[in-house]
Amino acid sequence: MIDRLCIIGVGLIGGSLALALRRVGYVNEVIGTSRNQDHLQRAVDLRVIDRFEMNAACAVDGADIVVLGVPLGAMQQVCEQIKDALREGTVLTDVGSSKASVVAAVRAAFGRLPMGFVPGHPIAGTEKSGVEAAFAELFQNKRTILTPLESTSEQACQAVHDMWAAAGSIVEISSVDHHDQVLAATSHLPHMLAFGLVDSLARMGEHDEIFRYAAGGFRDFTRIASSDPLMWRDICVANRRALLSMMARFRADLDIIAEAIENEDGEVLLEIFTRAKQARDTYVIG
Amino acid sequence: MIDRLCIIGVGLIGGSLALALRRVGYVNEVIGTSRNQDHLQRAVDLRVIDRFEMNAACAVDGADIVVLGVPLGAMQQVCEQIKDALREGTVLTDVGSSKASVVAAVRAAFGRLPMGFVPGHPIAGTEKSGVEAAFAELFQNKRTILTPLESTSEQACQAVHDMWAAAGSIVEISSVDHHDQVLAATSHLPHMLAFGLVDSLARMGEHDEIFRYAAGGFRDFTRIASSDPLMWRDICVANRRALLSMMARFRADLDIIAEAIENEDGEVLLEIFTRAKQARDTYVIG
Repeated sequence: MIDRLCIIGVGLIGGSLALALRRVGYVNEVIGTSRNQDHLQRAVDLRVIDRFEMNAACAVDGADIVVLGVPLGAMQQVCEQIKDALREGTVLTDVGSSKASVVAAVRAAFGRLPMGFVPGHPIAGTEKSGVEAAFAELFQNKRTILTPLESTSEQACQAVHDMWAAAGSIVEISSVDHHDQVLAATSHLPHMLAFGLVDSLARMGEHDEIFRYAAGGFRDFTRIASSDPLMWRDICVANRRALLSMMARFRADLDIIAEAIENEDGEVLLEIFTRAKQARDTYVIG
Repeated sequence: MIDRLCIIGVGLIGGSLALALRRVGYVNEVIGTSRNQDHLQRAVDLRVIDRFEMNAACAVDGADIVVLGVPLGAMQQVCEQIKDALREGTVLTDVGSSKASVVAAVRAAFGRLPMGFVPGHPIAGTEKSGVEAAFAELFQNKRTILTPLESTSEQACQAVHDMWAAAGSIVEISSVDHHDQVLAATSHLPHMLAFGLVDSLARMGEHDEIFRYAAGGFRDFTRIASSDPLMWRDICVANRRALLSMMARFRADLDIIAEAIENEDGEVLLEIFTRAKQARDTYVIG
């Protein structure tokens, strides 16, 4: 049970976390803060947060847990705003899609890694963004990865673990590097392919017609290309090392497919497609 | 209204066409044929077809419309089996995902292009295959592209047009080359990316864990990697010219993204992602 929760950046993820915790009565009071007063008022109107502060330092004052729900590119700046107001025992966590960059941002802002800091990442989301898209069930049965550091206190880690569990999530522990590699493979690379494909087609002549013929598979395939461009710009830069390595790997694999097509080598194509189908059918449900 | 329809290859597409036409009473009798007697018996049991013949030449005898629903790689062989049994007035069409290769297969088998031959392609499907996956609503509000040739009679074209319209489809006319380019862009390339991505991940160490963290976006993105490997091998070979050209174009675009990530060029990334999101949101619904 959290007495006072402070969410910095009340968007899809931060808003859904507040809604999920309120629904099960796991939080007493939720304070929101961000740069946009209209968004915060909307979050109050939607009963996502109880009240808001425009000043981040005021917002974290007296909070038991502070959640950084801002884009990766804003993490350091926000941490600089709150560092003097944060009490020693306050638990600080984030929801960023890349973890090494958030650790670096916190270290740069605080000049050290606070013992209350627990890097976290709920593997959930939709292609929508903003508090209007928030809903209490977003994390239900979805994994949340925590990557506690050597500096992280056990108490803080447990508090963040319990918060996500209360929100309905399956909580797992990983290392920063491992998280960043796995996410580059399963989320960041697919987004690059979807953005890249849609942009390729949009820049072709006759793109009206191209998109008119886009069938069901294409619709599913490109849904993630509707994701927030600003958020994804930040993710690309933040996780560039792991992402570039995955993109190079994928490119080499795509070249093998292209070569097999060029050579009309049906055997190689069948082998690749069969292996992919088996993996998809075995590991990914639905 | 069709008196007797013959479907060669009673799978997802052929089976769904039969169901769609039967539902609206547009066909009197449906004869199926394929190499697999069990599948055909199953199609009878599911009331997809009225009866079957194991011999394709017998199956087309007396048919008003013959639909080639076999994989692209089997088109020529099937045409050779039926060419002597096909009456001059019989309408012949197919459902192949690439059109130039089917035209070549028909020409090779018949030694000419019959006036009743209307190349066709319903832009519909799921990642499932086989007659068990067939359903009457598959083509509802989906486009079907016909690419009539100089040799095609107006009567034949009209008959195939009316058949797909009766099945619920929006029928459009295009040229063979244009169809093959548009499909390479909107269907064949996305399938290569999905197969390639899942195979890339499946070949990484720790792929259990990789797939365990695959979130909602990944699930949607890779659904098409569950498609029939044999069918896709054939499509790749059949439409290789258009597909390879699209793959080269995509690769160049992906390289631009990788370069921008490498250079931490947020402006270029934001521009690409924004253009992609706008195109996706404008042209693709849902």
